[in-house]
Amino acid sequence: MKAYVYVSLKRSVLDPQGKTIQGALQKLGYHGLQDVRQGKFFELTLDGGLDKSQAESAVGRIAREVLTNPVIEEFRYSIEE
Amino acid sequence: MKAYVYVSLKRSVLDPQGKTIQGALQKLGYHGLQDVRQGKFFELTLDGGLDKSQAESAVGRIAREVLTNPVIEEFRYSIEE
Repeated sequence: MKAYVYVSLKRSVLDPQGKTIQGALQKLGYHGLQDVRQGKFFELTLDGGLDKSQAESAVGRIAREVLTNPVIEEFRYSIEE
Repeated sequence: MKAYVYVSLKRSVLDPQGKTIQGALQKLGYHGLQDVRQGKFFELTLDGGLDKSQAESAVGRIAREVLTNPVIEEFRYSIEE
């Protein structure tokens, strides 16, 4: 089973890396971009021993407690069998 | 319209950052993880002027030419209206 955790900066937090990419893309001639934000994701391969609800709670806990800084970041996750 | 570009290391490329996270999670008592890989994603907010197929080609071009290092990385993207 695979779980994907997506961590991004909260909307209210400035994302200078995204702004830099947006500026670079504009200079390179790619127009039509209103905003760019960057985040990170984690692909977790889980042991087969967990059922889906166990996996959900384990992944939620890992995402909340370890992978995300709750002061400035938010996360979402999805699980694929 | 929003586009999400997900960039990850190719399967054949070692991901030391993912391995470090996996080791740290194990030490912290989170078991049941076979593998962890880390990647990054970009959330692009596009101008309203593009239709979906134009957006697809623009985002594909940006992902291929700028956001991804084709030697070691691969990407996928999705577009949401």
